[in-house]
Amino acid sequence: MLRPLQWSKGNLKVLDQLKLPHAVTTVSSRSVKETGEAIRNMQVRGAPAIGVAAGYGMAQAVLASRAKDASGLIRDLEKAGIFLKRTRPTAVNLAWAVDRMIAKAHRKRDHKLASLKILLVEEAQAIEEEDVRLCAAIAAHGSALLRDGDQVLTHCNTGALATAGVGTALGCITTAAKQGKKLHVWVDETRPYLQGARLTALELKEARIPHTLITDSSAAALMAAGKVSLVIVGADRITAHGDVANKIGTYGLAVLAKHHSLPFYVAAPSSTVDLSLQHGADIPIEERSADEILFVQGKGIAPKGTKALHLAFDVTPHSLISAIITEKGVARAPYDLNLAKLLES
Amino acid sequence: MLRPLQWSKGNLKVLDQLKLPHAVTTVSSRSVKETGEAIRNMQVRGAPAIGVAAGYGMAQAVLASRAKDASGLIRDLEKAGIFLKRTRPTAVNLAWAVDRMIAKAHRKRDHKLASLKILLVEEAQAIEEEDVRLCAAIAAHGSALLRDGDQVLTHCNTGALATAGVGTALGCITTAAKQGKKLHVWVDETRPYLQGARLTALELKEARIPHTLITDSSAAALMAAGKVSLVIVGADRITAHGDVANKIGTYGLAVLAKHHSLPFYVAAPSSTVDLSLQHGADIPIEERSADEILFVQGKGIAPKGTKALHLAFDVTPHSLISAIITEKGVARAPYDLNLAKLLES
Repeated sequence: MLRPLQWSKGNLKVLDQLKLPHAVTTVSSRSVKETGEAIRNMQVRGAPAIGVAAGYGMAQAVLASRAKDASGLIRDLEKAGIFLKRTRPTAVNLAWAVDRMIAKAHRKRDHKLASLKILLVEEAQAIEEEDVRLCAAIAAHGSALLRDGDQVLTHCNTGALATAGVGTALGCITTAAKQGKKLHVWVDETRPYLQGARLTALELKEARIPHTLITDSSAAALMAAGKVSLVIVGADRITAHGDVANKIGTYGLAVLAKHHSLPFYVAAPSSTVDLSLQHGADIPIEERSADEILFVQGKGIAPKGTKALHLAFDVTPHSLISAIITEKGVARAPYDLNLAKLLES
Repeated sequence: MLRPLQWSKGNLKVLDQLKLPHAVTTVSSRSVKETGEAIRNMQVRGAPAIGVAAGYGMAQAVLASRAKDASGLIRDLEKAGIFLKRTRPTAVNLAWAVDRMIAKAHRKRDHKLASLKILLVEEAQAIEEEDVRLCAAIAAHGSALLRDGDQVLTHCNTGALATAGVGTALGCITTAAKQGKKLHVWVDETRPYLQGARLTALELKEARIPHTLITDSSAAALMAAGKVSLVIVGADRITAHGDVANKIGTYGLAVLAKHHSLPFYVAAPSSTVDLSLQHGADIPIEERSADEILFVQGKGIAPKGTKALHLAFDVTPHSLISAIITEKGVARAPYDLNLAKLLES
């Protein structure tokens, strides 16, 4: 199984996902700056994996800190955290991991500096280990919603490459297949980064699950033809009311699923729920470089000087979502009540 | 203005649209076989332009025929027609042009062979000249539906490159802009062939109309943000009930437009209406090579061995269409009555 991140003594080996599926190469990050750049330029991507990477970035800041005491170390961590949070603004997992590292430092500030540093590196490792368990639990809950014979449509990549474990939405699919359910997966190619074509197709190939790649605009026709049983996607941030920010194209799929009376599932760790935000409109949406649309694998696709708008995410209102699958179980409408209840459990 | 086709004494110069926008090159077709291949491999594309090319392909069959009499010539034309119709099965304009050439041969079969041949070449030229006038009339009707300040979303390419004239849907846009209406156009890139990115952006650049390229899956988010006033697209075939086959992705846009209460317009010559078909399900949908999805400008985007489904078109049911704009005027629901009425006018 391809692993997006491998930590060893301060060095974070990042699988360069921009090069997949053509080449399997890693880049070594030895500093919070290098880890932040790997997040920003999407060598590592996927909300949970970004969270894990951010945790290790903070650990690198710990190891590089020349502070003489806990207060100085916390100041260095806060600086590193501001830098990391700016690399990708939409996924809450990144901010969550940063804040968790800082909170840990505050809680353990009375420890000797050397031992505090060890505790913080262990905290980053704990974030990774927890993500493995969270993925397994999400997959256990989500796979129960998939039935033998289902034609599952998914968007972007939400598998092992997007997390430290088996994944979120794609983890539900691969886990259901391991349970013996016969599935066929429609893989949205997911422009502009083609995470579906490059990454999800790769994971499904390795898992030997039948799948077919489609352009993003083909989903509607397949739904109308009765060839889609359900849609399942991941999430980068979920508000208290159950509005979901996820890869651009998700919202359109949700409208199409509603129009064709198909279930639309979102799978994500509960840390994706940001109770500080009420509504989808409150979620900051990252706008990325137009060049990421204008060039495909280095080749220009439009006339010189063409302007392009690259929204990296969109927001799906809770009214279009059949269920939100977390490691703690499955929440359904009304989400404002049921998400909070689930988080407390 | 770039012209997709130029006929001169049996030679059809075809602008190679696969090379646009990077290179402006033409290929010379001197036989019906070469013209058919240019249609099949999409060097010429766009339903009306395909119709014009097919007319000239039939004219080339006329010029190449060694038949000794009208009956022999008609047999040769029927053979050429079968070949041409197989190159692209969905657009009705191709079949319409082929049948028109054969019908003309039947009507004029009593002429001397040499003069019959001249009449048939003139018929092919008449198809092209008529398309210029049809486009202008469609644009006149359609531009009236666009208001100053509109944010227009369009899919694929339906302009001068897709027709012999100013185009259909894009012709409405450029004509409205010429009338002084300030428009901004959202250009769907239109995977897999990227006709939006490569061709529509090029035409809008030449026409100096403000436009922004987006990935196909961005339309929903822009609609939700109130940044789309209306959607306008072309058509490859329209049934008696007003169901519309058009470039894959059109149907999804129509569902999204309905969900956001936005007008969804279809612009096409009345020859696109195929009264022999009642419902969208009756329209043959071309399935093209998976490689056209798996490779973008020659570069692979998915793991080796990945299966892809390339539906070239989808069908939008009449219930999602606000109006169908033809050269004879604008039809609205109920289309089964109003389309027939319009065609008779």
